[in-house]
Amino acid sequence: MNAPYYAVIFTSTLKENKGYEEEAEKMLALAKNQNGFLGFEGARQEIGISVSYWETLDDIKNWKNQSEHLLAQEKGKSDWYASYHVRITKVEREYTM
Amino acid sequence: MNAPYYAVIFTSTLKENKGYEEEAEKMLALAKNQNGFLGFEGARQEIGISVSYWETLDDIKNWKNQSEHLLAQEKGKSDWYASYHVRITKVEREYTM
Repeated sequence: MNAPYYAVIFTSTLKENKGYEEEAEKMLALAKNQNGFLGFEGARQEIGISVSYWETLDDIKNWKNQSEHLLAQEKGKSDWYASYHVRITKVEREYTM
Repeated sequence: MNAPYYAVIFTSTLKENKGYEEEAEKMLALAKNQNGFLGFEGARQEIGISVSYWETLDDIKNWKNQSEHLLAQEKGKSDWYASYHVRITKVEREYTM
């Protein structure tokens, strides 16, 4: 990854986790096959934070509208999430150890 | 928070956690008193993801160079982190449930 590229920061709290992990893994496998997918990182304690990385804003839009992902988003809203927040961000610079 | 604003995505793995949580809480308390601080979210499983939100790039630079924070960063590199990655991002849009 070389800036500029895009990061989608998805933070959430769950009201129910039955079937959630399995679905999340399925969605990650699908995302990896999308155009422009660059990577994914996630962790959950009191809240879950998932960050996915993409080449362009169009890649993010295409993933948001992918048919199986749309169904998963609906199920997320009805069954799993107590709350969520999605931030579309542009990675301007980065450094690493 | 209303876009545009900035998010610093800090991902890390630890080689040692002795004293780490205590220092992280101290740094968060300090960050909250910095100009331009908007919020913080964090979770850790295999990796840790911390996201802090700021009004401007200058606010981020000032926090990076804050004296006690500089010492904590040095201790992080020598004692706690096996690896880390910092991404400075601009939040372009967002939506929530």
